Amino acid sequence: MEKALNELSAAQAARRIERQEITCEALANACLERIAARDDEVRAWAFIHQKQALTQARELDRTPRRSRLHGVPFGIKDVIDTESLRTEYNSPIYRDHQPRADAACVALLRQAGCLILGKTVTTEFATNHPSPTRNPRDPAHTPGGSSSGSAAAVADAMVPLALGTQTGGSVIRPAAYCGTFAIKPSFGSINRAGLKFVAESLDTIGIFSRDPEDLALALEVLSGRAAPEFAPASGTPRIGLCRTPRWQLADAGTQANLEDAARRLARAGAQVREFDLPPGSEALFDRHNVVIGFEMARALAWEHINFPDQISASLKPRLDEGWKVTRADYDAVRETARQCRRALAEEMRELDFLLTPSAPSEAPRSHASTGDPVFNRAWTLFGVPCVTVPYGKGAHGLPLGVQLVGPMDGDMPLIAWADWAARALAITAA
Amino acid sequence: MEKALNELSAAQAARRIERQEITCEALANACLERIAARDDEVRAWAFIHQKQALTQARELDRTPRRSRLHGVPFGIKDVIDTESLRTEYNSPIYRDHQPRADAACVALLRQAGCLILGKTVTTEFATNHPSPTRNPRDPAHTPGGSSSGSAAAVADAMVPLALGTQTGGSVIRPAAYCGTFAIKPSFGSINRAGLKFVAESLDTIGIFSRDPEDLALALEVLSGRAAPEFAPASGTPRIGLCRTPRWQLADAGTQANLEDAARRLARAGAQVREFDLPPGSEALFDRHNVVIGFEMARALAWEHINFPDQISASLKPRLDEGWKVTRADYDAVRETARQCRRALAEEMRELDFLLTPSAPSEAPRSHASTGDPVFNRAWTLFGVPCVTVPYGKGAHGLPLGVQLVGPMDGDMPLIAWADWAARALAITAA
Repeated sequence: MEKALNELSAAQAARRIERQEITCEALANACLERIAARDDEVRAWAFIHQKQALTQARELDRTPRRSRLHGVPFGIKDVIDTESLRTEYNSPIYRDHQPRADAACVALLRQAGCLILGKTVTTEFATNHPSPTRNPRDPAHTPGGSSSGSAAAVADAMVPLALGTQTGGSVIRPAAYCGTFAIKPSFGSINRAGLKFVAESLDTIGIFSRDPEDLALALEVLSGRAAPEFAPASGTPRIGLCRTPRWQLADAGTQANLEDAARRLARAGAQVREFDLPPGSEALFDRHNVVIGFEMARALAWEHINFPDQISASLKPRLDEGWKVTRADYDAVRETARQCRRALAEEMRELDFLLTPSAPSEAPRSHASTGDPVFNRAWTLFGVPCVTVPYGKGAHGLPLGVQLVGPMDGDMPLIAWADWAARALAITAA
Repeated sequence: MEKALNELSAAQAARRIERQEITCEALANACLERIAARDDEVRAWAFIHQKQALTQARELDRTPRRSRLHGVPFGIKDVIDTESLRTEYNSPIYRDHQPRADAACVALLRQAGCLILGKTVTTEFATNHPSPTRNPRDPAHTPGGSSSGSAAAVADAMVPLALGTQTGGSVIRPAAYCGTFAIKPSFGSINRAGLKFVAESLDTIGIFSRDPEDLALALEVLSGRAAPEFAPASGTPRIGLCRTPRWQLADAGTQANLEDAARRLARAGAQVREFDLPPGSEALFDRHNVVIGFEMARALAWEHINFPDQISASLKPRLDEGWKVTRADYDAVRETARQCRRALAEEMRELDFLLTPSAPSEAPRSHASTGDPVFNRAWTLFGVPCVTVPYGKGAHGLPLGVQLVGPMDGDMPLIAWADWAARALAITAA
């Protein structure tokens, strides 16, 4: 049976638009219909201007093809400025806020002929306070955060691609919880002009999709790195199986799932060896919070000083804590992180990627928290690229993910290996 | 004879406010009067709301002292968002633009009881296109850029402290041209939320003052680092005299001036030795442009795509060039910079600071250019702190500066050494 248009991958949809088999408008309509049918339950979208989206789509139908993603709709996490759609960071402090300009990443997408379909729900300022978004696989479960809406919208086939951001684990974790692919690229890959900062030394714009090829095509537009060919990979990878110093925080199903994935990848030809993080890394799993706290207190100083009563009860004490972090402590963590980053680069030299959990469990059955970023934070601090590949199920039947971590600036080879791994794990793209 | 209030250093003024010898309002009035008398010629200010400034000042007079800079007026470069003052980046694209929030650095200053006096003139988006600002020492000469207004306003005693930004040489060079002190802090020292980006991996918020102690007090508020005691320094520094691979671009007067400064500091007790930059650094003096070009094209993508005719004739071709830089080339320069940064840290271990020119000459007699950042760019790329100390005169009688470069995160010791050096060079604080 033929897939509905909203279920196509971005690459599939763009190829059909190129061949004039479908229009951008029809694709946008299919996405909007899916949203109309489902978003009362999922609540993935903060703001959509339907008429404007369809006007854009018709314009793109009349415009010469601008890129391999021409006509493809995107969801944009609502911490990224858009000229044509209000941008509220899920904070009452920014009710009806209308930025003057598009963020750089949005301008790059428009330049490539992509359609900005709407803004996806973020947690408050991309921090931990849960958003109203539900996990589309089971609305009793969290979708994760902070890129809750982007993960849920892509997983639920409301849009083929969406942008999120990660400061701790805000891209990889919700993608794993909702059962999609996602990349948190190398730090510095996607320009951040027009992004509302939480912790500028960590904040990284990432991408959600239902197919690894789509990650590569979107990252090409956004970073200037050339997407690899997605022919069946001829080689096999050298993999470091990295349980991390927090392995005991992964539940039994997640532990078994990762080890199962490693065995299957080995059977598919990969060389798999155990990998321990460099000495000193362990402390960073917790000390990452020192960096976030110090920077977040400052980045949100205006809001904290002027509108303390409009900051959530979970964020406010974190800001107060952030002010207590000393500069010396902050500088020391950053120096340790720099040292570990160099040591990690050295130790990964003979490996193509590390294999590690995307999250400690399936999406928790709760809306009181967005889950635990313990398996994401250190990689964000190291600045290295991470891709999550949906693989396996948890005890409640929700998706699990395995995380591939590559060397700095090795984003495109990492996506190609994620594609290889997904095939080897016999996952068919959704 | 007693100094006029506007001529006081920030530390002097704040001490007199603390002792209730003067009011914040009187200090603000003195600054506003100086501006009224001089700014038709100097053109340092983009926007001042006089009534609002005086209202703020009276409020601060009624408020308990919040910091060692309570009541001190600041000029804010007009690439930094202010809630109460429009922010135009010196671009017609942003005519009458009113940001929703204060930048983090502005919020921190207000929290410390500082007075936001007004916005200082920037070049267009803090790039190279000259601003209307004149050098207060001689209006036929450029004040330098891109922080033209902040340098000129502080040098002309219109305000004791001002914020600027440096991506190439936009803090240190204009300070040297106008004859003030300034610091470009270590990368990561001052939170950049609310700063209009040019090249986010380089953009650094810096501070202008007429006294090194003021740099320390302002940096304490802005970075959380504790300011050192400004007692007469008991020790003497170990100095690396760094002519750089671009020594031949410094004019004869600048070369002689730097060597004279080194001799005088040696006579004052410093150990001075020749210092060569690590192998590979040389290329970075030019390749810095690769990083700026790549990032700037993306950071200003919205403006470039939507308002090409409102971008200056000097910026537009630079953006076009930026789009031609390949990601591979950009990644390669950044990797070389990381390697050189590590090598530099290693080689500076036995030194307190490097001594190097702040600019290749005194301020050029021209308004067609803001001068050459050749002696600043590599340090910005390395992320290390730089302080310029006014010392000597050029052939036209305009000020020269010597630049002190310290190790990463060693900002406060570097300011203390700048104070030592200024005293040793027998400069009396203005």
